Amino acid sequence: MKTKRIAIIGAGPSGLAQMRAFESARSKGEEIPEIVCFERQSNWGGLWNYTWRTGLDENGEPVHSSMYRYLWSNGPKEGLEFADYSFEEHFGKQIASYPPRAVLFDYIEGRVLKAGIRDWIRFNTPVRFVRYNEDDETFTVTAHDQVKDSTYEETFDHVICASGHFTTPNVPHYEGFEEFKGRILHAHDFRDACEFAGKDLLLLGSSYSAEDIGSQCWKYGAKSITTSYRSAPMGFKWPDNWDEVPALVRMEGNIAHFKDGSSRHVDAIILCTGYKHFFNFLPDDLRLKTTNRLATADLYKGVVFINNTKMFYLGMQDQWFTFNMFDAQAWWVRDAIMGKIEVPTDLNVLKADVEERIAREDAGDGDKYAIQYQGDYVKELIAETDYPDFDVQGACEAFFAWKDHKKEDIMAFRNKSYRSVITGTMAPAHHTPWKDALDDSLETYLQNELVKEKEKA
Amino acid sequence: MKTKRIAIIGAGPSGLAQMRAFESARSKGEEIPEIVCFERQSNWGGLWNYTWRTGLDENGEPVHSSMYRYLWSNGPKEGLEFADYSFEEHFGKQIASYPPRAVLFDYIEGRVLKAGIRDWIRFNTPVRFVRYNEDDETFTVTAHDQVKDSTYEETFDHVICASGHFTTPNVPHYEGFEEFKGRILHAHDFRDACEFAGKDLLLLGSSYSAEDIGSQCWKYGAKSITTSYRSAPMGFKWPDNWDEVPALVRMEGNIAHFKDGSSRHVDAIILCTGYKHFFNFLPDDLRLKTTNRLATADLYKGVVFINNTKMFYLGMQDQWFTFNMFDAQAWWVRDAIMGKIEVPTDLNVLKADVEERIAREDAGDGDKYAIQYQGDYVKELIAETDYPDFDVQGACEAFFAWKDHKKEDIMAFRNKSYRSVITGTMAPAHHTPWKDALDDSLETYLQNELVKEKEKA
Ligand SMILES: Cc1cc2nc3c(=O)[nH]c(=O)nc-3n(C[C@H](O)[C@H](O)[C@H](O)COP(=O)(O)OP(=O)(O)OC[C@H]3O[C@@H](n4cnc5c(N)ncnc54)[C@H](O)[C@@H]3O)c2cc1C
Ligand SMILES: Cc1cc2nc3c(=O)[nH]c(=O)nc-3n(C[C@H](O)[C@H](O)[C@H](O)COP(=O)(O)OP(=O)(O)OC[C@H]3O[C@@H](n4cnc5c(N)ncnc54)[C@H](O)[C@@H]3O)c2cc1C
Ligand SMILES: NC(=O)c1ccc[n+]([C@@H]2O[C@H](COP(=O)([O-])OP(=O)(O)OC[C@H]3O[C@@H](n4cnc5c(N)ncnc54)[C@H](OP(=O)(O)O)[C@@H]3O)[C@@H](O)[C@H]2O)c1
Ligand SMILES: NC(=O)c1ccc[n+]([C@@H]2O[C@H](COP(=O)([O-])OP(=O)(O)OC[C@H]3O[C@@H](n4cnc5c(N)ncnc54)[C@H](OP(=O)(O)O)[C@@H]3O)[C@@H](O)[C@H]2O)c1
Repeated sequence: MKTKRIAIIGAGPSGLAQMRAFESARSKGEEIPEIVCFERQSNWGGLWNYTWRTGLDENGEPVHSSMYRYLWSNGPKEGLEFADYSFEEHFGKQIASYPPRAVLFDYIEGRVLKAGIRDWIRFNTPVRFVRYNEDDETFTVTAHDQVKDSTYEETFDHVICASGHFTTPNVPHYEGFEEFKGRILHAHDFRDACEFAGKDLLLLGSSYSAEDIGSQCWKYGAKSITTSYRSAPMGFKWPDNWDEVPALVRMEGNIAHFKDGSSRHVDAIILCTGYKHFFNFLPDDLRLKTTNRLATADLYKGVVFINNTKMFYLGMQDQWFTFNMFDAQAWWVRDAIMGKIEVPTDLNVLKADVEERIAREDAGDGDKYAIQYQGDYVKELIAETDYPDFDVQGACEAFFAWKDHKKEDIMAFRNKSYRSVITGTMAPAHHTPWKDALDDSLETYLQNELVKEKEKA
Repeated sequence: MKTKRIAIIGAGPSGLAQMRAFESARSKGEEIPEIVCFERQSNWGGLWNYTWRTGLDENGEPVHSSMYRYLWSNGPKEGLEFADYSFEEHFGKQIASYPPRAVLFDYIEGRVLKAGIRDWIRFNTPVRFVRYNEDDETFTVTAHDQVKDSTYEETFDHVICASGHFTTPNVPHYEGFEEFKGRILHAHDFRDACEFAGKDLLLLGSSYSAEDIGSQCWKYGAKSITTSYRSAPMGFKWPDNWDEVPALVRMEGNIAHFKDGSSRHVDAIILCTGYKHFFNFLPDDLRLKTTNRLATADLYKGVVFINNTKMFYLGMQDQWFTFNMFDAQAWWVRDAIMGKIEVPTDLNVLKADVEERIAREDAGDGDKYAIQYQGDYVKELIAETDYPDFDVQGACEAFFAWKDHKKEDIMAFRNKSYRSVITGTMAPAHHTPWKDALDDSLETYLQNELVKEKEKA
């Protein structure tokens, strides 16, 4: 039989998980398909690949990463640890629970360097368009090699879309934005909190970006933070110079007017208003349309596109679980492609699976329900493959504890530690409280005790 | 004979000129092809369609406009006036010579509103990809209707690419950018000079963007302006708080180090480093590759793509002449499509034309040579169509005078007036010197004398 050809779009954590899954089968002696991963950035890591750039990148492509300087994991690392590659294996020791971006990037990279799959990836190569050919049931992928500045087409038996969904900003307009005399930016373009030191900041939104960007700016010296919610406040115990106010109604010059009639002066506006699932390289018959939720539309088992079961999507859910969920999905998709798992052919069966997931998500309320729901999903998938079994429930418990720690003290939850569900080791306390740790480098984070001289220098 | 179908990509000044050209033939009783214009923005006007947005727009597409608040024409309007629609016809009177953006937008719009061609345009519809079908010599255009969120294909006999080339920024990296603690942006993302009031600004580049963005920031209260040149300084007589320095070598924190060994503290960096010709919707066989110059590569008569003469490009030259040059091109392309002008079929003939233009551009030096060169190009094209003949040499003279006025006083050249080459009328002096005119609205600009009360309010 001819070797199948598989296209993976994106070499972020999801796409890398997919390559690692295939490589794992290969290393066990199985024959695997030919894998081609198209990655528009010049390096792997997806959102974790930090850049100082905003807007369009050096190739004219949209800058992919939405991450910023001084970003620390906002959930405990014990909730995302790879079951086949622990933090202890990578760093040679256990490390504290909320690593900064550079540390997590290093960890993600460590596993795939070990797997030796970098050659499968075509960097600086955005996928421009994909077409499905009914006649021979193949996909034609049009890609653009930015280094050679050349477009070309190739044919594949399957396409796995792992292009992420926290890159294309949802950017609402409010009256008066045209006349505002400061910077208006979306969270996607936020880079260095120091830019906003001494300023009165308005952040729209009441989710993770508003909370974390607000916290960064507070930590690095903003004069005041105002977060404005549309539906419900975050309700944490904020520092004195942080207010949570109702929805923005309009700007009048630099004065923001809110729904409760209150108003205040602001110097800059950061729109922490979420992201869009955006696939400008896919035609209608292959394009996922979903909101950002745990049970996405149109994905059987959360991964198989029901309108064309030769097409898969990874990581399209809203995320409590991340790296380990991408693994669970990737191992499952690998086995579906390799014929070890059978995907139903009856559209009604596929649809029923999607509907059941949606109904079950809608049946409950609150963060703990949602965490448990996604934990159960991870359990479901890993039970069907040879992905190393691990204590998913233990990871759920780490998330539950994290939620409580945030309620106790939103500026101190990152000082807490949790136990690894992979190695069983308790994470050490970090050497410096998060709010005082201005240096977010890997070198400083990995020190067991802070070398005082270095911090001073 | 079947009516030909023509796709125009972009409804900026060039695309609009193309529609106006066809409509002009139609109004004279000629049978014209069916025209479909694809425009990714929600309105026409191209770069002149101002938006407060940066990065990606409300549809997730790259924000097209590179214009900013308070932008005034940087060349005299007498150099760009439409020969078939004068400023006097549009505004009912002659107006001053350097209108702000809103005034020029109104003028551009006035002509096409009168022509009644808005229905030809599909707004919010980016072209995703174009393929040429050798067998039946047609083009398949894949477009995305963002309102319906639906992609579709249509077939055309010709494609006219008028997508502009001052949108995709050329963004160089310099050592230390990752650690810089302020905003780094490209001119493309510059919006409101007020954001930079009180700041020490570094601008890289020594062309129009550096000059004009620096001038805006100076006018609106920047503490100091430093412009850094790679090849040659602009050499104007700058205000006291404006220095021109050699190339940037690296940043160290917020200290910029230059090639002459000097260094200085800066709060923000604006990269005025130009743009790329960028066509991510075109395959190799249709894609123009050229630098930003007067004689582009691979365009016969500056408009016919020599590798496929059914494909045309408008406005791809570097620009002294703008609106009237786009008109000259659009009328010429219309006549080529309608069979009134014959395009050579011999590739060598096409190439010889391109080479002759390049050699002639390279034969001379300096701005006046370049202006005359492009003026001659405009003359050449309009001589071959029924575009209203006008005094192109007079427009060249306006540009020559403009150049001298800039040398005299870079902060005062916009106070000068020139004579229209279309109506022969002298432009009035503007009521307020440019450096004191902080209100750039159409209403204020069009007043014959400044209503003092309004300015105060
Ligand atoms: C600000 C922010 C902070 C976050 N913080 C955390 C955190 O602390 N902990 C955590 O666990 N998770 C966090 N996340 C969640 C994040 O979604 C995941 O950690 C993870 O990055 C998702 O991986 P992915 O591979 O699915 O997508 P991405 O990381 O987005 O990777 C997608 C890849 O696809 C490529 N791509 C896209 N389009 C194309 C194309 N047309 N052609 C070729 N390549 C393409 C991109 O370049 C990119 O490399 C955060 C997310 C955001 C936005
Ligand atoms: C900052 C700046 C200031 C300038 N100031 C002046 C000035 O003062 N005077 C002057 O005469 N000239 C000025 N110019 C020059 C300017 O290039 C022209 O005035 C004019 O806008 C060029 O018109 P265009 O139609 O060729 O391109 P654009 O104005 O860029 O229009 C191109 C259009 O194509 C659309 N488009 C692009 N890609 C797609 C796609 N894939 N699918 C569908 N639609 C697409 C865009 O949305 C846009 O509407 C300035 C340029 C810049 C960058
Ligand atoms: N480990 C983790 O838990 C973790 C860590 C980091 C990131 N993440 C993920 O990263 C994603 C990105 O987070 P995010 O905060 O950027 O996006 P998000 O979670 O989707 O939240 C978007 C926010 O914007 C608000 N909003 C949307 N449109 C608005 C409008 N027009 N006006 C005002 N407010 C508007 C929403 O309000 P409404 O509530 O009114 O809709 C919501 O508060 C999240 O989905 C999260 O799952 C997760
Ligand atoms: N009516 C008019 O005359 C008019 C008005 C407005 C705009 N325009 C047009 O608008 C276009 C845009 O103007 P622009 O100023 O943005 O672009 P530009 O004219 O292309 O100039 C780019 C500038 O960036 C510099 N540069 C490029 N790469 C660099 C790098 N890596 N490091 C440092 N400097 C670098 C170039 O220096 P080098 O010189 O060393 O290459 C040049 O000074 C122009 O082409 C112009 O024709 C014309």
